[in-house]
Amino acid sequence: MTKVVEPVSVKSQAKLAQKASKSLGMLSTQVKNEALHVVADYLDQNVATILTANEQDLQNGKKAGYDDAYMDRLALSEARVKEFAQGLRDVAKLDDPSGETLDEWTLENGLNVATVRVPLGVIGMIYEARPNVTVDATGLALKSGNAIVLKGGSSAIHSNRAIVKLMKEALANTEVSSDAVQFIDSTDREATEELFTMKEHIDVLIPRGGGKLISAVVNNATVPVLETGVGNCHIYVDKDADAQKAISIFVNAKTDRPAVCNAAETLIVHSEWLSANKEALVSAFNEHGIGVYGCEKAVKEIERAEPATEDHWASEFLSLDIAVKVVNDVSEAVEHIDNYGTKHSEAIVTESKETAARFTGLVDAAAVYHNASTRFTDGSALGFGAEIGISTQKLHARGPMGLPALTTVKYVMSGSGQIR
Amino acid sequence: MTKVVEPVSVKSQAKLAQKASKSLGMLSTQVKNEALHVVADYLDQNVATILTANEQDLQNGKKAGYDDAYMDRLALSEARVKEFAQGLRDVAKLDDPSGETLDEWTLENGLNVATVRVPLGVIGMIYEARPNVTVDATGLALKSGNAIVLKGGSSAIHSNRAIVKLMKEALANTEVSSDAVQFIDSTDREATEELFTMKEHIDVLIPRGGGKLISAVVNNATVPVLETGVGNCHIYVDKDADAQKAISIFVNAKTDRPAVCNAAETLIVHSEWLSANKEALVSAFNEHGIGVYGCEKAVKEIERAEPATEDHWASEFLSLDIAVKVVNDVSEAVEHIDNYGTKHSEAIVTESKETAARFTGLVDAAAVYHNASTRFTDGSALGFGAEIGISTQKLHARGPMGLPALTTVKYVMSGSGQIR
Repeated sequence: MTKVVEPVSVKSQAKLAQKASKSLGMLSTQVKNEALHVVADYLDQNVATILTANEQDLQNGKKAGYDDAYMDRLALSEARVKEFAQGLRDVAKLDDPSGETLDEWTLENGLNVATVRVPLGVIGMIYEARPNVTVDATGLALKSGNAIVLKGGSSAIHSNRAIVKLMKEALANTEVSSDAVQFIDSTDREATEELFTMKEHIDVLIPRGGGKLISAVVNNATVPVLETGVGNCHIYVDKDADAQKAISIFVNAKTDRPAVCNAAETLIVHSEWLSANKEALVSAFNEHGIGVYGCEKAVKEIERAEPATEDHWASEFLSLDIAVKVVNDVSEAVEHIDNYGTKHSEAIVTESKETAARFTGLVDAAAVYHNASTRFTDGSALGFGAEIGISTQKLHARGPMGLPALTTVKYVMSGSGQIR
Repeated sequence: MTKVVEPVSVKSQAKLAQKASKSLGMLSTQVKNEALHVVADYLDQNVATILTANEQDLQNGKKAGYDDAYMDRLALSEARVKEFAQGLRDVAKLDDPSGETLDEWTLENGLNVATVRVPLGVIGMIYEARPNVTVDATGLALKSGNAIVLKGGSSAIHSNRAIVKLMKEALANTEVSSDAVQFIDSTDREATEELFTMKEHIDVLIPRGGGKLISAVVNNATVPVLETGVGNCHIYVDKDADAQKAISIFVNAKTDRPAVCNAAETLIVHSEWLSANKEALVSAFNEHGIGVYGCEKAVKEIERAEPATEDHWASEFLSLDIAVKVVNDVSEAVEHIDNYGTKHSEAIVTESKETAARFTGLVDAAAVYHNASTRFTDGSALGFGAEIGISTQKLHARGPMGLPALTTVKYVMSGSGQIR
């Protein structure tokens, strides 16, 4: 007698996750929180296993010639592992969005209608490098009652494999099915692409990583996508801007963490303000080592500015460089943002409430700021406790996404025989 | 000197709509309501023009050999025109979702954070037959501050063209730009397909029509889609069901309006209940002229039942026919729904609160019912005033969609120089 062993396919894994999501969705908050603690403790106890696996990824990364920044994102340490284990305990402390009754009313015929938050079901997470995403995303998924299918980057496959194995071992001792966490153990692009169209078994895809990864998912997926996008953010300094506020906001947005998505990439400046405050602005550029690429007018006004290319306007520098565009009014500023912005975070500095209202009304972005740095577009800065990512799409969730972004709504109707 | 006239392209129309959406988004509710009244009155005054155009579509439809149901959906009359004109005035009465502050808080550093509902921007509406959608969708879009790009079915092109021309003429006398309504005057499939990927200028696509149209949009669009889907709805009659409630709910859900999406297509029945209530059930089938296709057990028990095919389980009958599946417990019922349901509306009839809770908890659908007919999944039945469609997707909006489904959220931050 031969035993037929079905090969582990992406589809069979997604199906297992879907099945597990059913019972997971019915568990109490307490049971889910206990499971998160069990997983956290187990990761803590098995740091060595994770670091050994990570060492393999690091050696392969060295061979592949990855740059320092990339290697740093890939590298784990005891402290980093303890940090993401602690992250699971922190997620356990957050309010459980699932099961919350959002609204409830009774029709004239006596039918009771309630809208209840429920888990989305199965989340497909497609991500690059950082192995901490493996743990963070799993924690957020389980807490909100969702199963998760993880497809990490090839460069972190040993770390991710080890982490998931441990998480599943830990879950086996809890009421959460270990099938609720699925790891696509493959470096094939085909495996990722299979996830794109698995509408029957996966409810949402969340890509986390560079622009290329995100657009590959957005352009090819039939599964709905939660798009966490690139931030090409602008600071517009209006003619009525306070000079000190303007320079401090701009410097903060540009230099605090240049590589993050809510950092400023272009300074749009009103010609009158520039004439009046050129010296102070140039001093700030010099003091903070900011490289300047400018439009024709900016190049004329600012000695050290080099001409900006189309690419400078359209892309993130992710460095201490900035593009400078000189405009003659707020409409021109809004037009520039319309052309080049990525609908992430956009700021105006002005003492005119009218101009501020015009700017925040007209600019189409997840977050619009008046007299503050764009750096506040961030789940932790806003007090969300945890963040799945920052959505630059308009449907479902926009801006920093907390746990509720991983839920949908269900109409629950209770009657006594009502017909229409 | 030759004058270069740019041809009217789908892209140029989408761009015009996008430009118009900017100023439209800033208009007050009152101004938008006034515009809706101006359009309604103008349509009323020009019924004859619309009916003449409709006559052309009807003649073409006759030549093409469309069936009666189709011709009925296509046909306009003075009464129907007055009805959709009145629909615009009704939409004017609804609350304007746009501009509503959903939440507001102040960070420790004094930065004020508000989440404000704002229009999505530009809605791409792709629909078949019924010319009333042209007016209904435009009214909902404008009321919520959105521009709209309309792509109707070829068979209604004369009616739609005439209606849009009148709406734009009317808007020219209001503060709403007539560019906010764009009509893709083409019967080419390519024109529709161009809309699928116009992410830069269109914020959401809403397909309204048959399953083929919807899946073409879902499978090919990179623009986010609000999926309004097919309803393959089930009534599960549990062993603890009250016989009178069960039969009355089933008959209502099946026969009230068999062609609509919230009608029942399959009756799942517990074997014990069936044994005890076979006669009453068969009488109801007979009384209402219901054709029965059954699983093996059902065919054995119910004399007039023919064997059901896979297609009977998987598709909408849209007629007085029903598929009958006999099960031994609620889990088996849920499993059948998981396999064949379309996540629209699903009902259980039972006197057991426990079984009801299990069913409504486990079944994954926009609406789940305990002891009531599925026919209540409907914007007007629930008191929404107007409905863009019934969403069977989980992201953004689920179930009957009112005006808020056409909005997104914007974080509006007001500070006094806050940096991080």
